[in-house]
Formats: sequence, C-alpha cells, structure tokens
Amino acid sequence: MISTKITTLFGIETPIIQGGMVWCSGWKLVSAVSICGGLGLLGAGSMYPHVLREHIQKTKIATSKPFGVNIPLLYPNIEELINIIIEEDVKIVFTSAGNPQTWTKLLKKNGIKVVHVVSNTKFAKKAEDAGVDAIVAEGFEAGGHNGREETTTLCLIPEVCKIVKIPVIAAGGIGSGEAIFAAMALGAEGVQIGSLFAASAESSAHLLFKQKITETNEGDTELIMKHLIPVRMIKNLLWKELKTAELSGTSNDELLKILGKEKAKKGMFEGDIENGELEIGQIASQIKDIKSVSEIFEDLKTQFQFAVGRLKNSIGEKFL
Amino acid sequence: MISTKITTLFGIETPIIQGGMVWCSGWKLVSAVSICGGLGLLGAGSMYPHVLREHIQKTKIATSKPFGVNIPLLYPNIEELINIIIEEDVKIVFTSAGNPQTWTKLLKKNGIKVVHVVSNTKFAKKAEDAGVDAIVAEGFEAGGHNGREETTTLCLIPEVCKIVKIPVIAAGGIGSGEAIFAAMALGAEGVQIGSLFAASAESSAHLLFKQKITETNEGDTELIMKHLIPVRMIKNLLWKELKTAELSGTSNDELLKILGKEKAKKGMFEGDIENGELEIGQIASQIKDIKSVSEIFEDLKTQFQFAVGRLKNSIGEKFL
Repeated sequence: MISTKITTLFGIETPIIQGGMVWCSGWKLVSAVSICGGLGLLGAGSMYPHVLREHIQKTKIATSKPFGVNIPLLYPNIEELINIIIEEDVKIVFTSAGNPQTWTKLLKKNGIKVVHVVSNTKFAKKAEDAGVDAIVAEGFEAGGHNGREETTTLCLIPEVCKIVKIPVIAAGGIGSGEAIFAAMALGAEGVQIGSLFAASAESSAHLLFKQKITETNEGDTELIMKHLIPVRMIKNLLWKELKTAELSGTSNDELLKILGKEKAKKGMFEGDIENGELEIGQIASQIKDIKSVSEIFEDLKTQFQFAVGRLKNSIGEKFL
Repeated sequence: MISTKITTLFGIETPIIQGGMVWCSGWKLVSAVSICGGLGLLGAGSMYPHVLREHIQKTKIATSKPFGVNIPLLYPNIEELINIIIEEDVKIVFTSAGNPQTWTKLLKKNGIKVVHVVSNTKFAKKAEDAGVDAIVAEGFEAGGHNGREETTTLCLIPEVCKIVKIPVIAAGGIGSGEAIFAAMALGAEGVQIGSLFAASAESSAHLLFKQKITETNEGDTELIMKHLIPVRMIKNLLWKELKTAELSGTSNDELLKILGKEKAKKGMFEGDIENGELEIGQIASQIKDIKSVSEIFEDLKTQFQFAVGRLKNSIGEKFL
C-alpha cells in the first residue's frame, strides 16, 4: 500500500507492525498480519524457548513473507532464545525492556535486522548508538509495560525523530487509520499496533479477554505502579487491589506479590477477567468488535484514506 | 495562512488559538496572538471582574482583530463576569470546568460565539447539545486542570470528531507545527496552544516561571491528584509534598489544604518556583527559549511546512 523507509527495511508492503504482545501473539496472528502485507511479531515474552521454536516453524509454514520476534531483554533464558532465533534463521528481532547494547551486535552479525523499543529520547539515542536499525517510540497510551515519564505519543514522536537518524516507528494510541496518518505527520516512518491485534480473531488471547476489550470505555484503562514497574491495564478487581494498595503506602515487595507473575497469563490467556492482569492500550475503548486481521487491515486503509481526504477538504489541497 | 471551519467561525487568519491560561493570559499576550492572525483568549480564571474589564478594554485598544475570553464556569462571581463580557461587547467566549448548559443560551443571544472545553466524548456531546459553536477537546498532555480519564490527544480527537458535528479544536501536547499537522490529520479544525504561549515574552507569567519551563525535561511534569482535582504541574517541592501525601493515604481535605488557593499565583505570577504551583503541559520539555509571539508563529508555520514536506517525501505525493 504505502512504502516508507520501514517497508524497505523489512521488505514488507505497508508500514504496519503488529506488536509482539505476551499471550496474544502466536503464529496464527503473526502469519495473518504478514500475509496482509504488514509485519507480524511473535511475542517471546510469554513463551518457553521450545514454544518459541515451534511458533517460528509454524509461522514459516503459514507464510513465506517477512515476520519477526519480540524479545524482552530481561527474559531469564535470553541466551537460549537468541540461539533459537539464529538457528531458525529469523530475519527480524524487536527488543524491549533492557539494554540494546548486549545483544544487538551478535544479532546483526547473523544478518538480523534489530529494532529496539523505547519510551524516551535518551534511550532512543542509546539504542541508535548500540547499532539498531530502527526505533519503536512508544507513548503513554500503550498497553502493558510502559515508560515512567508518561510521555504521550504526540509529544514523544517529534522529539525522537529529532534525536535519531534511523527510522522511527510510532506506538501507543494507534488503533485507526486516522492515528496512522497523524503518527506519520509527526515524522514516524511506520506504526506498531498492539491492542487492535490483541482483540483480533487470530490473537491467541482468551475470548473473554477479547470481549472485555470490546466493552472497554473511555477511562477504563490506567497506567499504574509508576514507581515500580509501570503497566497499563483494564480496571478490574486486580487493578482495584493494586490501586488501593498503592494509595495506602504499601511497600513495593507487597505490590509485586499482589501483581504476581502468573496474573498476566491468568487474565489474558486463561480468561479470568476480574482477577487476572489485562494489559491493553488506551485505544481499547475504540474497539467495538472482534475482527479478523484482514478486516482490520481493510479498516485501517479505508480510515487512512478518509483522514487524508478530510484534511484536504478542511485546509485545501495547496497546503498538502 | 490556513483557512478551516474554525478560522471562518472566528474570522481569524490561521486556526491557532492561544489557551486562556490563569496568570499568563493578559491583554499583552492576547493582543499579540490576535495581531499574528490567531485567536488570543484572556484568562478570566485569575482575574477579578474589574481586572477582566480592564484587560478587555486594553486588548481592544491594542488590536481591532478578534479575541476572546476564557471563563471557568465554576468562577465564584460568574454572573458578574458574564455581564462584563456582554457589556464590553466581547464576541468570543471559551468556557471550561462546568456545565455549558447554564450560560450558553444567554451568551449566544448576545451574539457571542461560545466554545466549550472537554476531555471526553460524553461532555463533548453534552456541550454540542447545549448549543455551543465548537469544542476544544483537551488531552492528558495539557497543563493545569485536566480530565480524570487521562485520554491523550491522539486517542481523544478522533473519537470526539466522530461524536459531534460542530468543529473540534485539539488541545494538549501541541507545541510545534508537526503537532498541528498531526492534530488536523486526526480531524481537528484548529488547535489550542497553552504552554508555548505561557513561556512567551508577552505572557504575564513571572520570568522565573518562564525560565523554569525552558529548563524542563522529559518526565518533569506530572498529572497528579487524579481522584480529587487532576492537575498537571512541574515536579517541584510543592509537587513532592502533594505526591508524598497522595501516596501515603492523606485525606482529600488535607490534600486541598496543601495545594491551597494561592499556590498557583505564588508559582506562576510571583515566581516562587519551588513552593508555588507551576501548571504547564507535557510539551514544556520541547520549549528551550523564551520567544516573542511573532517568533512562535513563524516557528509553527515553518515546522508545519517542514512536516508536510517530510511526509510527502516519506510516503510519496500520491498518498496525499
């Protein structure tokens, strides 16, 4: 559809990247996105190494188009993951939550394109210095783990574009073609979309989580635990427990105990929508139906064209 | 420069509105903005009724171009303010923080254009139903008092544009031509800019506050007191006191005592940058110098043109 530096970098048709989300991004979602001309990313954060290998192999069977893997750099068996990625000949890796200095060189030596996710300009510069090929700059609106600065996508993208020379991918708050247009107006060469795909038919998330996303209204997600590990989630019973604890001076250790390691799986994969952790972005309130990936791509294209036409109508062709 | 429904509505040359901010927006700032072709708004929130009258009269002497007044509807002497506005033949009023139903009819009967500021779609619809001429939709990034939902400008504008038929003005996170372009890509017919003008040479804010704005970095402002009266401010000693109190379960009454009524004046007008309340938006970190209003307008124009050119370069003319 549209070619930019990002489509050229990855050899894809349209600069839409599906975020590699825990418990949502298995081979079905990833291959569906790549088949539609975007870039699908497996979410290694919620996979055992052997599970990741299986998903890589299944994705390759499902499509010959480019796809990648998202790795949280704080993953305990990170070395094992990296080796699998190299052995399985994955061509694209997105890294997050950690220092890009550690693995970028090895990955690049193996012919892998590396992209790092950041939430401020300081880490954007550090990632560029570490040799990555592109940056995902993710704003406050995004679901799941997030930056402490709370900088929104609108404020973050122009600043990151000023500070790095490599292409910038905007993430956070992007769930429509209008938002893609706006992100590119800010200087992004592509977008990473999470929530829309978490709620898609092909997402491996539990149906009850997907349904919960479609019922979410304005103000129904919140970025909490800002002084510990900031995370945006849907306001449910678990959120209430964390919030109450946070506002009554509970210690960090206690907070971590309440959140627990298994709560994300419980909520998003097992469908316990009250006691589990439901990580989703602020645009959840814009999602009204569970759609297939191809319907989502159609919507985004239509909305993008609508937004361009509307702006031309509003300010006149000569300004564009 | 650019004509949209908003420039037509107000009879101005470019769809840039200067937010009517407490302690910053006197006749000097307002007339400077209107002279540059935007719409200046007096900030009645920090003026006694007789002071507002004086500023209206001085603005009229300084320029024959359109200008307006921003009124927080919770202002204690609201009736007196409204009467002054009608007597002084002000043609444009922006209302915020209150029910637009109460005064819109009277203002419109007196030939005044009325715009209401909201932070969610529900109040946008209510304002339209109350008969206002346009909406300011203000995102989480904005300085000062703000919505509880924390919806960012990127997420808010497309939704408000869907729900109302009247023109939408985007506010929050807009401090550059790139951001103006993005806001219009989202469907806004104009923008309201606060922080940039708060730090301008013509702003009535204290020089020490303006200097503090230019020294602000990413993450140096925060929206706090979300469960009482959400307000975005610079992180200083007062912020620390409020934050500590908030996180240790202090009662709302106690929090209100710490914030106090005079703290905004103390910080922004008297220049006590540690003990006063410094209301400013997230884009403060993008402001590096105190500039004149005309320099700001030049910058915005240049940046807007740059952003349009960059996008054309990136995705190609045929997509725009």
